[in-house]
Amino acid sequence: MKVEARRHNATGMIQIIPVKGIPEVAKGNDVSKSILEGCRISGIRLSSQDILIVTHKIVSKAEGQVLQLNSVVPSAFAKKAGRHIGKDPRQVEVILSEARRLVKMVRGLIIAETRHGFVCANAGVDQSNVKKGSIVLLPKKPDLSARKISEGILKTTGKDLPVVISDTFGRAWREGQIDVAIGIYGLEPFSDYRGKTDQYGYELKATVICIADELASAAELAMNKLDRVPVVVVRGYKFERDKEITARALTRSPARDLFR
Amino acid sequence: MKVEARRHNATGMIQIIPVKGIPEVAKGNDVSKSILEGCRISGIRLSSQDILIVTHKIVSKAEGQVLQLNSVVPSAFAKKAGRHIGKDPRQVEVILSEARRLVKMVRGLIIAETRHGFVCANAGVDQSNVKKGSIVLLPKKPDLSARKISEGILKTTGKDLPVVISDTFGRAWREGQIDVAIGIYGLEPFSDYRGKTDQYGYELKATVICIADELASAAELAMNKLDRVPVVVVRGYKFERDKEITARALTRSPARDLFR
Repeated sequence: MKVEARRHNATGMIQIIPVKGIPEVAKGNDVSKSILEGCRISGIRLSSQDILIVTHKIVSKAEGQVLQLNSVVPSAFAKKAGRHIGKDPRQVEVILSEARRLVKMVRGLIIAETRHGFVCANAGVDQSNVKKGSIVLLPKKPDLSARKISEGILKTTGKDLPVVISDTFGRAWREGQIDVAIGIYGLEPFSDYRGKTDQYGYELKATVICIADELASAAELAMNKLDRVPVVVVRGYKFERDKEITARALTRSPARDLFR
Repeated sequence: MKVEARRHNATGMIQIIPVKGIPEVAKGNDVSKSILEGCRISGIRLSSQDILIVTHKIVSKAEGQVLQLNSVVPSAFAKKAGRHIGKDPRQVEVILSEARRLVKMVRGLIIAETRHGFVCANAGVDQSNVKKGSIVLLPKKPDLSARKISEGILKTTGKDLPVVISDTFGRAWREGQIDVAIGIYGLEPFSDYRGKTDQYGYELKATVICIADELASAAELAMNKLDRVPVVVVRGYKFERDKEITARALTRSPARDLFR
């Protein structure tokens, strides 16, 4: 009995480990080096089965995806729309520059589809956790950002770790926001049960879990939006490696989207 | 330096611990007892700061929320609609009985709003992980189910633990499904940053994280739809206690729903 208990307990536990003490990231910084510095300060020794979840903001900062609001010249439409929905026209201008389609404009908020294909508030443009007067955009190519971080870590440590870049998104039907994946590298983002049979012999027909989003949400629990914990190590989750698939696979085409 | 490292490492880690070995749950079973039996088999000693995440299916089974498909008599509409979208009319009938509004009917799938207010595929009705020929409904009152489990655990162990009942939902805009909370007891489901200032003095205006859903998603990573791991212990997440709030707070009213 004792042996069985220990065997059970030994398998399947997942740890969500916040990487604290990451220094302020500035344009041109190597994010992988910042993460490793945070790991050193936090006393985290990376293992070859770890997954890194990185909030997009430090990536955007490192890549210079930050604008000074003062330098933004709003278009005639941005001025008019900003006045109408009660939003700074310069912000509206930045959102327009980041969007390929607007979904809704109302009461101080714009829901937009970013050029990556993500549907989110303000096309992912955000003024929190950045110097006053600045505005942060999403990384231009979040999958490439994830890959660069992974390759930087590999170069320094010899460990080949998947990386998920996350952001905080609102969603339809439900209150509150959750973290989701906007960039991925090195892991299969879905756990596909279709065609597999459960313990009763029933064949699952539609179950495809988006584990990339679940990893981002799990990581958020160990982050803190006021305290600068922009990176989390997920340890113990058995992922499948995939170096080709991108976060484009996470966006649902309108034709397939029954929830829209 | 070493001291700082240890202090950092000591704080903030979250563990997602699968409760294995839970025996098959039948109608009338006390789910809290099944969970404690699983904890015993898994060698998990519950702590007073743990959160329990329980998939709705074992709750539905214990509460007798299981129908025999053979005993279902489809209405004229269920027959007609089933033929039209290519779905068993008896299934359609069960979905109709669980729904208060249909959102979409297409290609073998019905998106419906359940009487609890959740928008999900097939009104939460599902044939996996149950005996062949059976169909499982959502618990009638998932918050009450969560409360009963919590109170059962408290009675036996003296530990007052929050409980989240989870289900796997599809969503708008994004591919794949994730686990979300459909019943809660004992914890504040949101982490509300509105009015708080970040490290740069910027006041967050809209950030309200749905930690109940993130906990459900985190737990799913340690579950397995084929292997019977229906319960997970989340350890190390600092939650706020709240015994009044229900999962109704997680459903967004159409008037407030800009993503819909």
